[in-house]
Amino acid sequence: MKVIWNNQLVEREDVKIDMEDRGYQFADGLYEVIRAYNGILFTAEQHVERLFTGAKKIDLILPFTREELIYLLNELIKENSIETGNIYLQITRGVSSPRNHTYPKIEFTSPVFTASTTVVPRNLETMKDGIKVITLPDMRWLHCDIKSISLLGNIMAKHEAHKKGKDEAILYRDEAVTECSASNVSIIKNKILYTHPDGNLILSGITKTVLLKVARQRGIIVKEETFTLKDLKEADEVFASSTTMEAMPVVEIDDKPVGDGKRGPVVKLLQELYVNEVELTCGSII
Amino acid sequence: MKVIWNNQLVEREDVKIDMEDRGYQFADGLYEVIRAYNGILFTAEQHVERLFTGAKKIDLILPFTREELIYLLNELIKENSIETGNIYLQITRGVSSPRNHTYPKIEFTSPVFTASTTVVPRNLETMKDGIKVITLPDMRWLHCDIKSISLLGNIMAKHEAHKKGKDEAILYRDEAVTECSASNVSIIKNKILYTHPDGNLILSGITKTVLLKVARQRGIIVKEETFTLKDLKEADEVFASSTTMEAMPVVEIDDKPVGDGKRGPVVKLLQELYVNEVELTCGSII
Repeated sequence: MKVIWNNQLVEREDVKIDMEDRGYQFADGLYEVIRAYNGILFTAEQHVERLFTGAKKIDLILPFTREELIYLLNELIKENSIETGNIYLQITRGVSSPRNHTYPKIEFTSPVFTASTTVVPRNLETMKDGIKVITLPDMRWLHCDIKSISLLGNIMAKHEAHKKGKDEAILYRDEAVTECSASNVSIIKNKILYTHPDGNLILSGITKTVLLKVARQRGIIVKEETFTLKDLKEADEVFASSTTMEAMPVVEIDDKPVGDGKRGPVVKLLQELYVNEVELTCGSII
Repeated sequence: MKVIWNNQLVEREDVKIDMEDRGYQFADGLYEVIRAYNGILFTAEQHVERLFTGAKKIDLILPFTREELIYLLNELIKENSIETGNIYLQITRGVSSPRNHTYPKIEFTSPVFTASTTVVPRNLETMKDGIKVITLPDMRWLHCDIKSISLLGNIMAKHEAHKKGKDEAILYRDEAVTECSASNVSIIKNKILYTHPDGNLILSGITKTVLLKVARQRGIIVKEETFTLKDLKEADEVFASSTTMEAMPVVEIDDKPVGDGKRGPVVKLLQELYVNEVELTCGSII
């Protein structure tokens, strides 16, 4: 299995991360997960653009152009013969010794870039049956728009869900629902789709953005407005969205069914519209 | 230079961190910095206790007892002939592949422990002259009591301070001052010492705890109460405290002097009392 390490394709086992990589000591880095269907990357440009936007927010100078990065990622997909799967990529500010909170000067350190692939089939069964979730206070920082590797708050929430035998945690700040621990969340009430507006409290999800686009094209009214925990629990339909899950029905929240506890018609439609959108780039995936 | 890697003393250059170490991908880990004076660790038990407390909060099972860890740290100090310096230690949940937000089962992964030393002299000049700071909104998560490596919020604040030519950032949430980006902060007003109470919004600093103890012993009134940004700016004296800085006078905040812009008498006294406390364990450090 090949991976990318500092812009080179190398064997997985040859990669050596330094113990003083700032990614390891300070979570000083960013990541993306990009999905491939039929060996073709979907929305790669948007993911790369978000990486560049995040890099600007943390004053990280990336060691490639957008085009060079996309070229590299395509090489990796080809090399590993990935049909349906994910690329995980991350970049850190690099090695700096002795450890110091201060960002090192760019002359003295180079970012460390790694990327690897995993075969991940579309989980059609779960996309039909839906997932079960809990709700938790959102304890994360106030820069959730930055897709950083500083993820302890996220994984703690996911862990809480798993301890209770559930799949995900929907987070709320005060009374407003923000997103899930590793995905966005939207609700349908009286045929209107509500989802938290972009800003510093959520990640601007690329899958969510695609879904909102196809929903609007189909005539669904979309309101990017905050909604409350009460709204969530009284919604007709709820779905999470992420690169891997696409549009995923949420059928149970805090042990109570959403609607009749089954995937609803709007979410089913959104799943179909999403597939259509994927197929425009990647060819048939059914 | 020797370091500890998974409970063994090894050469620095032999340490190899895996690209799928959860510390690297999720900031799923904890750290401590412990100071040595005269080759003797100061408050090692308290640091180790805090590590164990943090590990419990994130369901991380540590691969050593408190006594084994202290033994290892002392071996490292001896091996590297550290007189006045720091041990940095960190522990992550270990390597888990393929990447998954969910905590791996303990049967399938082992925590990764690393520790290294740096010679760091006491900075007597700065302790006399003080540091200059800016104030910033506290954007960090709501588990600041956990000394985790999920530090991007902290280093971004420090970076903001440095961009303005200052040393540290004092953070506030709403109007309440919490702590600095890498230290606690306390103020003196009318001879009373105020500092943010322990809880989820600050790290329970070990240096702070020692300083509060010696302050109380000396008859200084200590109030562990929140204080506001206005209180901060009207304080007679302000100081930051951390393992490396000890009690550090803050002489300028947002370009305005604190008091007369010089180290004040209470902070000077606290510095002396702290040295006395260190000397009880480590012998003369003057």
